[in-house]
Amino acid sequence: MPELQRTPERYTTEEYEARLEKIRARMEREGLDLLILSDPSNMAWVAGYGGWSFYVHQCVLVGPDGPPVWYGRGQDANGAYRTVWMEPEYVIGYPDHYVQSTERHPMDYLCAKLAERGWDKGTVGVEMDNYWFSARAYERLQSGLPNAKFKDTTGFINWQRAVKSEKELDYMRQAARIVERMHHRIADKVEVGIRKCDLVAEIYDAGLRYDEWYGHGGDYPAIVPLLPSGPDAAAPHLTWDDLPMKPDEGTFFEIAGCYQRYHVPLSRTIYLGNPPQEILDAEKAVLEGMDAGLEAARAGNLCEDIAKAFFGTLEKYGIEKDNRAGYSIGLSYPPDWGERTMSIRRGDKTVLQPGMTFHFMTGLWMENWGYETTESIAITADGAPEVFCDIPRKMLIKA
Amino acid sequence: MPELQRTPERYTTEEYEARLEKIRARMEREGLDLLILSDPSNMAWVAGYGGWSFYVHQCVLVGPDGPPVWYGRGQDANGAYRTVWMEPEYVIGYPDHYVQSTERHPMDYLCAKLAERGWDKGTVGVEMDNYWFSARAYERLQSGLPNAKFKDTTGFINWQRAVKSEKELDYMRQAARIVERMHHRIADKVEVGIRKCDLVAEIYDAGLRYDEWYGHGGDYPAIVPLLPSGPDAAAPHLTWDDLPMKPDEGTFFEIAGCYQRYHVPLSRTIYLGNPPQEILDAEKAVLEGMDAGLEAARAGNLCEDIAKAFFGTLEKYGIEKDNRAGYSIGLSYPPDWGERTMSIRRGDKTVLQPGMTFHFMTGLWMENWGYETTESIAITADGAPEVFCDIPRKMLIKA
Repeated sequence: MPELQRTPERYTTEEYEARLEKIRARMEREGLDLLILSDPSNMAWVAGYGGWSFYVHQCVLVGPDGPPVWYGRGQDANGAYRTVWMEPEYVIGYPDHYVQSTERHPMDYLCAKLAERGWDKGTVGVEMDNYWFSARAYERLQSGLPNAKFKDTTGFINWQRAVKSEKELDYMRQAARIVERMHHRIADKVEVGIRKCDLVAEIYDAGLRYDEWYGHGGDYPAIVPLLPSGPDAAAPHLTWDDLPMKPDEGTFFEIAGCYQRYHVPLSRTIYLGNPPQEILDAEKAVLEGMDAGLEAARAGNLCEDIAKAFFGTLEKYGIEKDNRAGYSIGLSYPPDWGERTMSIRRGDKTVLQPGMTFHFMTGLWMENWGYETTESIAITADGAPEVFCDIPRKMLIKA
Repeated sequence: MPELQRTPERYTTEEYEARLEKIRARMEREGLDLLILSDPSNMAWVAGYGGWSFYVHQCVLVGPDGPPVWYGRGQDANGAYRTVWMEPEYVIGYPDHYVQSTERHPMDYLCAKLAERGWDKGTVGVEMDNYWFSARAYERLQSGLPNAKFKDTTGFINWQRAVKSEKELDYMRQAARIVERMHHRIADKVEVGIRKCDLVAEIYDAGLRYDEWYGHGGDYPAIVPLLPSGPDAAAPHLTWDDLPMKPDEGTFFEIAGCYQRYHVPLSRTIYLGNPPQEILDAEKAVLEGMDAGLEAARAGNLCEDIAKAFFGTLEKYGIEKDNRAGYSIGLSYPPDWGERTMSIRRGDKTVLQPGMTFHFMTGLWMENWGYETTESIAITADGAPEVFCDIPRKMLIKA
């Protein structure tokens, strides 16, 4: 191995070891002999790995003892050596002829490596509903590990990530400064006639450039900017085109700042002209509902208490929103900056704990318009939640 | 339904219908009654759908007759109405309490909808090794469609996309202009001391902004810019940090232009200082190998002929590259701008046809340095391939 120029560390080895200990305790309670983690966020949280290589099969293994093991494409082992906290012997690369081959599968090679370690039996946890664990990968594992039983451990690590450490909260505060700059830039630049693609260039510029005051630059958010206008804003996940912005349309800007892969999403709506009364009325209801929801976002309450407070206010104003009003956030890789654990919706009985972080996603997507004013928050030990960003909580009207 | 402000069409209805006819002919030959397409690129190519919603379960169905059917989250149906070529009755949204729920799965709801149509039996093709078709999704389908047999149709549509139409090639030529501007911007801005994150801001700016001459702006590439330096360039998929560029290091820039979701990737390497002889020697071998590979990239030859020509030259110079030297490109969504069909590697016997497009990925990732000079190409009816970009094919040395 050559001398490695390692990337700056996101966590200390002690933090990784403490996580590992908790994971093992939980594995024991659940009767798990091996955990196979396919979610890049979990791979990063457990092993430190980062790199845009999730388009090929890869994973992190947590076996019964020793450090985690990184498994991935041979050429990405170089990226693993540079980012994981384990020694190089805990990095396994598979040969390139396993990549996107119709004859052989990277999971076959993994099975052989597991057998070498004696990790090919007992109960194996796999993330059944993760993007990066395909139906084929599961089939190959089942066939290659005939002595193993499989258990669905989707979300196992994600739930361990739910309560953030002070350091993680600090990363999120950095991300908050970044998304604030992005919204300020939008507010400065948006006007009738500016092309959507040019506005997106401004958003990336503000989200990436180094800031001398804070001493940080930005990373890529797990979702690209979403900024549909007018009737298209009824659709929450359209991206952009290269056409000019029109007068008398509202546009919501759903974006996130990203620092050390920690995300703080924040949405605001800008109307170029005089908004119709319908949207002004909706805003009044949403803002009042957000106040009620934030009031309920206290340690000891349940996720659904926030939802009930918010939806209750909307209903008072005759607005029906049939989707959830938020989700857990933190460390993420594409395609989602949500953690896919708790949701702010009726029926979610998760008890709020200090250090849990949410995108309070209060967007409305109506038949032919949309409106988003959201906040990212952290539950605190006592009283009101920490609201990460300081951007006026209302629609910006540029006539 | 309100009057829809539809996004500009990428293809005509006639193009979609012609594709559908070919797909059905192939389905018949393979004994398939239903195709379930989870790959967003395939969903776009078959139905026109676009939107950053692949982080929840969604698919396009091609049944035995009629237009394709879009299936996805209820709130994304609004995005489907605006982007697909089919009438709104061919769009099915599932309720939001199916999203990231531990109790119910979007595939359960799909099974009920399939039964309503009588599409719940016979042979069902699923994309077993696609990111967006999880092990859990497959399990739910198997349990919900007890009268169906499943067949792996990974790549079924991707292969149909391999030969591009003249219109698709035109989209790629637009993407080529975009990636050229990105590389020109890098060459202008890169210098010792510039922070990586600031350089990435420049790359996005050049890749997105509207160009008056060409009358286009850029879309988001399926992979973020990759620009590791010095020893880190041994790792092909590291992204960036916010540290200043150092003297006497080489950096490769692996980026793509994206227009109408069609990609043209192009990599170049820039050395800040005097490159060591080892890298200069490698470049000589790579460039000579590329000439040989391009010479072999002719209709009637095989994919592996390009690989043999390229690797043969490298070996003459004593360089061993143990990974593939390229892959098919075109319409893509994250996490990969490759089409995951043909590869430029030994053993790939695919016959080259006019209109096939490749990223001739001739990068070298050595133990403690990396070098990438690549081209994107289209196979032509006669003679040499079309090289999409016009950027000097060599390392840029900035002393």
